[in-house]
Amino acid sequence: MGLIVQKFGGSSVANAERVMNVARIVTDTYAQGNDVVVVVSAQGDTTDDLIEKAKEINPDASKREMDMLLASGEQISIALLAMAIEKLGYRACSLLGWQAGFSTNSVYGSARIKKVNTERISLELSKKNIVVVAGFQGLNKYDDLTTLGRGGSDTSAVAIAAAMHADRCQIYTDVDGVYTADPRKVKKAVKLNEITYDEMLELATLGAQVLNNRSVEMAKKYNVVIEVLSSLERKPGTFVKETVKMEKMLVRGATKDSNVARISIIGVPNVPGIAYKIFGKLASKNINIDIILQSVGRNDTKDITFTTSKDNAKLAVEVLQELEVLSNLKIEVDAETVTKVSIVGAGMETHPGVAAKMFEALFENDINIQMISTSEIKISVLIDSKDADKAVEAVHDAFIPDEK
Amino acid sequence: MGLIVQKFGGSSVANAERVMNVARIVTDTYAQGNDVVVVVSAQGDTTDDLIEKAKEINPDASKREMDMLLASGEQISIALLAMAIEKLGYRACSLLGWQAGFSTNSVYGSARIKKVNTERISLELSKKNIVVVAGFQGLNKYDDLTTLGRGGSDTSAVAIAAAMHADRCQIYTDVDGVYTADPRKVKKAVKLNEITYDEMLELATLGAQVLNNRSVEMAKKYNVVIEVLSSLERKPGTFVKETVKMEKMLVRGATKDSNVARISIIGVPNVPGIAYKIFGKLASKNINIDIILQSVGRNDTKDITFTTSKDNAKLAVEVLQELEVLSNLKIEVDAETVTKVSIVGAGMETHPGVAAKMFEALFENDINIQMISTSEIKISVLIDSKDADKAVEAVHDAFIPDEK
Repeated sequence: MGLIVQKFGGSSVANAERVMNVARIVTDTYAQGNDVVVVVSAQGDTTDDLIEKAKEINPDASKREMDMLLASGEQISIALLAMAIEKLGYRACSLLGWQAGFSTNSVYGSARIKKVNTERISLELSKKNIVVVAGFQGLNKYDDLTTLGRGGSDTSAVAIAAAMHADRCQIYTDVDGVYTADPRKVKKAVKLNEITYDEMLELATLGAQVLNNRSVEMAKKYNVVIEVLSSLERKPGTFVKETVKMEKMLVRGATKDSNVARISIIGVPNVPGIAYKIFGKLASKNINIDIILQSVGRNDTKDITFTTSKDNAKLAVEVLQELEVLSNLKIEVDAETVTKVSIVGAGMETHPGVAAKMFEALFENDINIQMISTSEIKISVLIDSKDADKAVEAVHDAFIPDEK
Repeated sequence: MGLIVQKFGGSSVANAERVMNVARIVTDTYAQGNDVVVVVSAQGDTTDDLIEKAKEINPDASKREMDMLLASGEQISIALLAMAIEKLGYRACSLLGWQAGFSTNSVYGSARIKKVNTERISLELSKKNIVVVAGFQGLNKYDDLTTLGRGGSDTSAVAIAAAMHADRCQIYTDVDGVYTADPRKVKKAVKLNEITYDEMLELATLGAQVLNNRSVEMAKKYNVVIEVLSSLERKPGTFVKETVKMEKMLVRGATKDSNVARISIIGVPNVPGIAYKIFGKLASKNINIDIILQSVGRNDTKDITFTTSKDNAKLAVEVLQELEVLSNLKIEVDAETVTKVSIVGAGMETHPGVAAKMFEALFENDINIQMISTSEIKISVLIDSKDADKAVEAVHDAFIPDEK
């Protein structure tokens, strides 16, 4: 007996049959004696369809109006899910983001939750209702609708769980948990029983799209235990929490990120402050930099190479070309053929030899490493995209015990 | 220069092209120096599609959840219209029913407006925004969404016009005004320049579906001048107002209503209080009665015949059969072959001979009259449905001057 927050994404409620399936999961949880708050996203492709409708009329529509438009998607799915719950003989009450007490800042399209006033949710729970809340949306100080950006429903669910001190926040997806690698690509990938917030954050940042990063950050901040599990199969998923039992696995996951561009500036004069000028300028344009490599070039110059996301590559080059100190220098861009492959594991900082083992696995598969980056809980390498899947499998199998 | 409220129905905003068309009408009105508040319905078949989605999951869904679902329809259309207005270079601000200040009672599915707090609308107008309001919806005292029922957007528009003392409330439709008869059926039908609230109410009740009745009642109560006009052609429509200039037409419209059932009770004993028992019982079941006819029957009995709407016919018969005083009496129902044909005109009460002229026109066309009902501004007859169109044309042409 406790309070459980459950979140279902768009594909879990894509049609009538799936909505009924979700209703069965929710009512089973309720029937076991729990209070249940369910957070849902818009059905299937609804959000994309709405964006398409908007573009047809005005591709440069204001973000306020886009949020007004998009917030209708969850309104449909909460009403339908509440009806499905009623159909199964239980009481339900759907609540829009603002009714559920979500106050956000005013950054339309990617608003941040400021507060969740859970009074209404508590009232409905006290009336023995299963409460169905629209994810992804809130209200700003002008009483205008805002949306939290893609994946925001995860954050909505964690925010409610945090505000109400829920016993658990279950995030239902179309996979049955967090795997050591993408199970569609890596045969020996295994499901993790537990993973720490930090490991989950690294995996999400590195391309594993199970959980929205902001939601994991919030869960970490408020110590909300998340369980990632499948809406299609009834079996335990993966718990995301502060500390996990020591398992035999040092490395918790191997993953790749193809949204990478490599930019090189060749023959940078070897004078002080040049790195500051380059990266300060990029930062001022909100261009996030990942790996940085500086190597000795010819004639007392150096070559500076860094990676950023693909969509930032063009802007980054333009920004660099405006810098007087770099005028006449050659700037090379590769936004097509590079991929970042990473391993993540909270224990690796205390275990020497992890990096060496990773590089060995790559070497044995004839994979050339272009750049290397390390943090306390991850090691990333930049390689040719054609080798990416092979590389992930190779490093995965080097670290993860074969359980199959 | 003034404040103009404009309302556009679902077919006027059914697709991107039509939304742009509406945006042009709205911005033209604004460019002429007016403050503009636009009320819109859900796009085209959106409401029907949403009802279909709900039925697939739960045909007996609670009305609260149905309102939550249906209110999403206008949310989409206000956002799209605001975007279209922005596209034309004007400032727009869309507002949901609750943001626009609509308080209603709690009768989900057919809520009544209790108050419109126009503070937010005024604020947005003061910022030089064209304000786009979701029709058909409001908020009850529990902070839950309600809908006003079909045609409710007309009422929303009139309510705003009343609350803000607008100079005019323009209701855009797919016809270009109110006609003396259905122009698709009656060749000589002409468009009226003006019509009184009472005449409009009678015409709406009698089947002319230009304006929702509740909206006309509200307009009458608050003396809001309505203009009914076409969203497809730019030309003057029909004004609906308290008093109209005397025109040469005594009769303002001829119309038919096929949603009629005739119920006869044969051989009712001639004792006092029997009519009270019959119609009191029907009233207690919320069955509206229209025409009532009592005739002398055989052996000191009488026959009582009345009309009601088709969907009430079955219930009415059941109710009557429960009445002890009617036990063993024959109850005849005709819910298939009768139609009510009416003429409406505020001036007819002071002009004798109107009824005679109507009956003459029917007689000349060999149309048999089954029942007759008159009020101060209308005369209705019940006839066989097969004669309905011929009858409307005959009485129309007898009264309305041929302008073609």
